[in-house]
Formats: sequence, C-alpha cells, structure tokens
Amino acid sequence: MFETGQRAVQEILHQNQLDGLLFTSLENIRYCCGFTGSDGALLIDRKEAYFLTDSRYWTQAEEEVKRAKIVRYKKKQEGVASLLSDLGWERVGVEGPFLPLSLHRFLTGRLPGVEFIALEEELKNFRAIKDSRELSLLRYAIELSTKSFLDMVGRLKEGVRERDLALDMEIFLKKNGAEATGFDIIIASGPRSSLPHGRASEKRIARGELILVDFGVRIQGYHADQTRTLVCGPPTPEQEKVYRIVKEAHDLAIEAIRPGMPFSEIDRIAREHIQQQGYGDYFGHGLGHGIGLAVHEDPLVNSENRGPIQTGMVFTIEPGIYIPNWGGVRIEDMILVTQDGAEVLTSLPRELTII
Amino acid sequence: MFETGQRAVQEILHQNQLDGLLFTSLENIRYCCGFTGSDGALLIDRKEAYFLTDSRYWTQAEEEVKRAKIVRYKKKQEGVASLLSDLGWERVGVEGPFLPLSLHRFLTGRLPGVEFIALEEELKNFRAIKDSRELSLLRYAIELSTKSFLDMVGRLKEGVRERDLALDMEIFLKKNGAEATGFDIIIASGPRSSLPHGRASEKRIARGELILVDFGVRIQGYHADQTRTLVCGPPTPEQEKVYRIVKEAHDLAIEAIRPGMPFSEIDRIAREHIQQQGYGDYFGHGLGHGIGLAVHEDPLVNSENRGPIQTGMVFTIEPGIYIPNWGGVRIEDMILVTQDGAEVLTSLPRELTII
Repeated sequence: MFETGQRAVQEILHQNQLDGLLFTSLENIRYCCGFTGSDGALLIDRKEAYFLTDSRYWTQAEEEVKRAKIVRYKKKQEGVASLLSDLGWERVGVEGPFLPLSLHRFLTGRLPGVEFIALEEELKNFRAIKDSRELSLLRYAIELSTKSFLDMVGRLKEGVRERDLALDMEIFLKKNGAEATGFDIIIASGPRSSLPHGRASEKRIARGELILVDFGVRIQGYHADQTRTLVCGPPTPEQEKVYRIVKEAHDLAIEAIRPGMPFSEIDRIAREHIQQQGYGDYFGHGLGHGIGLAVHEDPLVNSENRGPIQTGMVFTIEPGIYIPNWGGVRIEDMILVTQDGAEVLTSLPRELTII
Repeated sequence: MFETGQRAVQEILHQNQLDGLLFTSLENIRYCCGFTGSDGALLIDRKEAYFLTDSRYWTQAEEEVKRAKIVRYKKKQEGVASLLSDLGWERVGVEGPFLPLSLHRFLTGRLPGVEFIALEEELKNFRAIKDSRELSLLRYAIELSTKSFLDMVGRLKEGVRERDLALDMEIFLKKNGAEATGFDIIIASGPRSSLPHGRASEKRIARGELILVDFGVRIQGYHADQTRTLVCGPPTPEQEKVYRIVKEAHDLAIEAIRPGMPFSEIDRIAREHIQQQGYGDYFGHGLGHGIGLAVHEDPLVNSENRGPIQTGMVFTIEPGIYIPNWGGVRIEDMILVTQDGAEVLTSLPRELTII
C-alpha cells in the first residue's frame, strides 16, 4: 500500500510539474506511510518522504511509519512551514478538498516564494485502484461484516429494537477484531427505512415492515459497506414490486460495468430503470462510491463523474427507492472491476429475505 | 444550546462587521441548529438562519433542525453559492480552521463581489461557555462514563487483555444509551502507558505495571473525557513518586483556576511543578482542552493561550509524565469554571488505585 501510494505520488508530481506534495488528510497519510494516528502531515518529493507529527505520536510514528523520515514539531503550522522552507520546493501540491483554509493562509503568508497548487481532479483517483494487499483487507472486511449481519439476522424478529440489533452487530465485530464499525450501523424499519441515512433507533420491528440494514466495518484501516433490505412477515405486493425494481437496477448496473466506460453511464443505467418503472422521484442519491481507507471515497458513481472505470477499482453499487412515510429499499454490494467486467465481492444473496 | 449558539453568532457578526456567517463544521452546525447528520452547511445573518443539506438528510433535517429554514441542494458548493448570491451578503465570515480550500476557492470564484473573512481567533471561544442544558449533558456524560470505568475496574486484574477491558467499557456505555465512545478508549499498561495516545492492544496486564485508562463517551453530542492511572500490585517507589508529582501538578493547577486568569498561567503552574521535580522532559503535551460537542475544542490550556479563563467554561486538566520504556501516569479531570474558582466535575478519587 505504501509503495503503491508513493508511486502514485510520483505520477502526480510528474504530471503537474510539482516539486513536492503536502498531505494533511489522514487517509492519504496512512496510504503513503502507514501512520494510523489522528494528527500529522506528510511531505513527499521525488526522492524522499517526511512524516511530521507532535510529541503525542512520536513513539507511535516510530513503530508505524514506513518509507518516510519522521520529523517532530511542536506546532503543526510552524513544523510544516519550516520543513518546506528547508526543502526549498517552489511548486507544492496540496489537497484542495481537505486542506483547511487556515493552514493554507499560514503557509502562503510564511513562504511567499512558494506556489501552492490546490489539487482537485488530479487527486480524484489517487487511492482508487487497489493493490493485492488492499484487496485482501477489503475481502476480509466484507467477510467479517457479512458474518455479523448473518448473526444479527438470526436474532431479527418482531418486537426487537433496532438499536439492540445494531449494538449486537457492533459487539460481534469488535469481539472479532474490528478496529471500528467504520460508520454507525443503520437498522431502519417501517417508515424509517425511507431515511437514506436513518440510524438505528429505539423503535421495535413490527410485522409487515421493511427493514433496511446498512452495515460495515474497518479492518486495518480498510472498510466494508454493504446494505440489505428485509421484510418482517410476508411482503405486500408493493413491497415486492419496489424490491424487484431496485434489484433489477442493481443487477443491470453491475452487469454493464466494463473498464473504460464512464461512471455516469453505470449510474444512468440503474437510474433509468427506476425511472421507467415510475419511481424516479424516490432515488435521490448517487449509485455508488469508492471504498478503501475511507468509507466514502473517489471514484463516485454518479451522473456527473464522466471519468473512466478502471480495472482494479473497488466501489459500491447501491440503488434505492425511498418513499416517505411508506418505507425504503436499498441493495448495496461492493464490486471489484476486472479486465472484462465486475467481480461482486459481496457474497450475500440479493433476494428479499423474509423474517 | 441553539439559542446560545445563535446569540454568539450575532456577537461575532457585530464585532467583525459581517453580513453573515457560513458554518461547515458539523459541531458548529449542531450547536446553532441541532442537525446531527454528517453533511450540510449553515448560513446565519442578523435575522435568519438557513440550514442547507442534500436529499440524504432532508427528512432528518426536518425532524432535528430548530431556528433555521431548511434549504435543499444537490451539490453543496452550488447550493451554498446560490443561497449566498440570493442573500446578497457582502462580507461573509467563514471558519478558517475548518473550511476546505476547495470550497473557499469555489465560492470566491463564483462570487467575486463577496469578501470572505477567515475567522480564527474570533471563533476560538464560540462554544466555550456552556449553558445549563449543555452542563446537564456534560454532567450526565461524566456520570455514565465514570460508571463504565468503575465497572471495568471491578474486572481489571493480572492477565486480562487491554483490548477486552476497553471493549467491555464500550459495550457498557452503548447498552446504557451512549451515542458513541467519542474516541477510542485507551487502556495502556506497562511500558505502553508511556504512549500519550496509546490504544488498547492485545497486551495482557502484568503484575507491577502501571495501567493508564483514558475513557469517554458521547451523549446527545456532548462528551466526557477523563483519565485515571492504576497499578497492578503494590507500586514501586518510583511509580509512587511519579504518581504523586502528577497528582500535585494536577491539584495545584485546579486550585489556581480563577476567572480572568490567562490559560497559560494554569499550564505554567502544573508544568513548573513537574519541572522542579525533575520530570519536565516527560510532559510533552498541553495541560488541557475545552470539551463539549467536540472532545477536543477551544479553549486550549497550554503555554500559548493567553486568553482569559471565563466563568462557565468547561475544560480538562490532565498533566502527565511519560517515561519511554518505563511507563506513564496521567490524571485527567473535567472542571467547570465558577465565579471564584473551579468545580471539579469528575467524581472519581485522584489517589493511586492499586488492583
């Protein structure tokens, strides 16, 4: 991962004629040198990488950081400015979406001779193609979170609280070595399933309700993120119909994936199907997102991303239909782009599970 | 809280002659309008507040947001720019430490007639003085996390894994209504206790070791953060000595707190005591930090913050001595500044607990 990250940096330096790059986002720092703490900065040029941090993390950095020299600072702004000044870089790439305005203002004020280039599109696919070590971790994260889901399904029945089920999943994950759940597990039943980001609440599962379960985990930094929708008791015809449409949209999108195709095309295929079936107003979010060191990362699978799908990328496909006061259905799989299509990393069946 | 937040905004608008304020940090958004989701923006002027978010959060925003109109967007940058343009503000305050460079560049590009003022010091104490509702939540968070600590201490003994103890605390907290632990609970024993931010590991507690436990919780957005250091079996003279020095530094600092005093003075009192006892090299971090909607927030209690301590502020006092390859001691209490001193909100005894 660190090698892959630092190689990707070299390409960005070359393409943008930069002397070096400043990373302050924790995911990019971890990707390039392995540091897992919560504060620091990374400077990389063509020859060397420098990880900067404060006294809280000196020992941890010495244990974790690979392929980078460790530099200590008392104040981050001063530390970064001082090393930049020593290195004498003239054109420095920074992370547009992550660099806080204050740090940018401090550095431009302190180093008037240095040009800071806010990288946007240039960094979009920086971590998008996963190497074999990353894929192993992603597969393991999927496997563990799938087990926690199946364990929970065994206890899912009428009258059980959403929150208790979510907590059981979390405990299962943590007892089995998860670093974290990655995000708050969503278990949303009945009308609450129409909240695309509804959290597990005190509500009890009732007969006849849809139950949307969006669950994940973090293992050594890498995330799983999958969703299944179940129903408590026999589904109504409309529940079956909505589920079928979402599943068709989901399957059509995955079948269409090919390297070289624009992401927007995959989003269009799923969206058009839902629209044609008359539910276009109820699918408000993008079709999917990249996943790795961040739960949500580039590439985004939506109508605006015209960038090409590439072999080795991992992202989610998660169409949904959310009808206010009625309920919602989402099916979310993680997929890996192969040379001629997509491998579905998610192993759970896509059929509607009846509890 | 929302009233307090919006009143504080009015003061900032007035003092900095701003037409309005743009908040993008989730804590400030929650503070001013109650939204608890993970994406959005808040615009406030002298008369009105506008909370902006995307389709994932429309229903949630309608349930949660108070004292603000809800505005929907498809893309955040566009949504914020468009509303700013409609409002016709000329001088807009933004959060220097939090506003991402990209959004700043987009807004300045789109709205060339608007002046964006990066607020730094002006926002430092924005959430620092807690109102009665916030104090209730902080007290409750302290009480619950204290219970989880005492429950864990009952099971702490030689041979138990750090990670298992931390997980038990987490489960206790979640089962009792915690939103989250707020941060990864630290249980670091033996030489690991010298890592100021060491996490709970697979290591088992051994006889003769110091055990540093830094634990917290989040309740309705508000955090507790406390630390105790214990010893497994009778302490050695050096363990006792180091503990005594940290406790003295801690108590001296708390006794000295008075409204109007600079924060740096409190830090100096604790630091000088540790220095005089010969351990100055082993106390690398600041003495404490504000706490509320963020675990770490302003005001910082360190040598650089010359701002005055004010009645109603809540912060931690947490001196420590960390000796590499030997171990560390930290004692962290949460305190509330009163009219003539400090009320210690932490109820745990400060003596060295022997397991």
